[in-house]
Amino acid sequence: MWTEENNQLAKSFEFGDFTEAFAFMTRVAFLAEKHGHHPDWSNSYNKVSISLTSHDQGHVVTQKDWDLARAIDQLV
Amino acid sequence: MWTEENNQLAKSFEFGDFTEAFAFMTRVAFLAEKHGHHPDWSNSYNKVSISLTSHDQGHVVTQKDWDLARAIDQLV
Amino acid sequence: MWTEENNQLAKSFEFGDFTEAFAFMTRVAFLAEKHGHHPDWSNSYNKVSISLTSHDQGHVVTQKDWDLARAIDQLV
Amino acid sequence: MWTEENNQLAKSFEFGDFTEAFAFMTRVAFLAEKHGHHPDWSNSYNKVSISLTSHDQGHVVTQKDWDLARAIDQLV
Repeated sequence: MWTEENNQLAKSFEFGDFTEAFAFMTRVAFLAEKHGHHPDWSNSYNKVSISLTSHDQGHVVTQKDWDLARAIDQLV
Repeated sequence: MWTEENNQLAKSFEFGDFTEAFAFMTRVAFLAEKHGHHPDWSNSYNKVSISLTSHDQGHVVTQKDWDLARAIDQLV
Repeated sequence: MWTEENNQLAKSFEFGDFTEAFAFMTRVAFLAEKHGHHPDWSNSYNKVSISLTSHDQGHVVTQKDWDLARAIDQLV
Repeated sequence: MWTEENNQLAKSFEFGDFTEAFAFMTRVAFLAEKHGHHPDWSNSYNKVSISLTSHDQGHVVTQKDWDLARAIDQLV
């Protein structure tokens, strides 16, 4: 589940190891380019934390964020 | 199944689309670096063809090829 | 220089090592997705060979191929 | 320059766009696997922030962190 807090959609993902996490990040990177909308995200070994907000709309959650969130969910 | 022919181990993989194929390639790339042994491979949209041989042993199939083949199989 | 032969645009690239070649491939992969046009390509350690043709136009070189070729050239 | 603070080595990198930043991350990912030592890092569009510490040594900066830092510097 994505949580909406502080004008951001956030979700954390956990994988078997670093390379599995990074392969997921590669797929998210493709989605981000396709959507023209990029995450603020961090990685630590097998964990990936994604935060989505619309910087250009004044840092609020918009339809673009929900669209990217849904597309990311379809990867896993 | 990997086929052994012309002193190479070969196998083809098919995915849902290009980004899924490329995420797989990213994971194979990590394995290749880890094993210190790199594939001859090609990609066309959702298809990836991998060929393994030991160039430094005179272009024959060695244990290094089988080890990498097995590691690749464990990804999918 | 890209060579046009057998209804394909072809060019080979050489890098310092495998990881440098694969980082280049990652950038080409992003371009391919952006252009909605994907290469037939192969990699062997530090070498990347790219072949471009328009499968959906009957396997001929079209403007889409030249556009992607130019975009790839701007990466290096 | 890497800064050492709060038992971490930290450095930020900026690139031309997201895909250039992500290609850099791909190369760092290979280094991390090679070193058996992984960064805590984050990305926002063209910016990458890397933080290195040795979790398994009680969250302090060790030679492993400096080695990975130096290897990352050689990429750019």
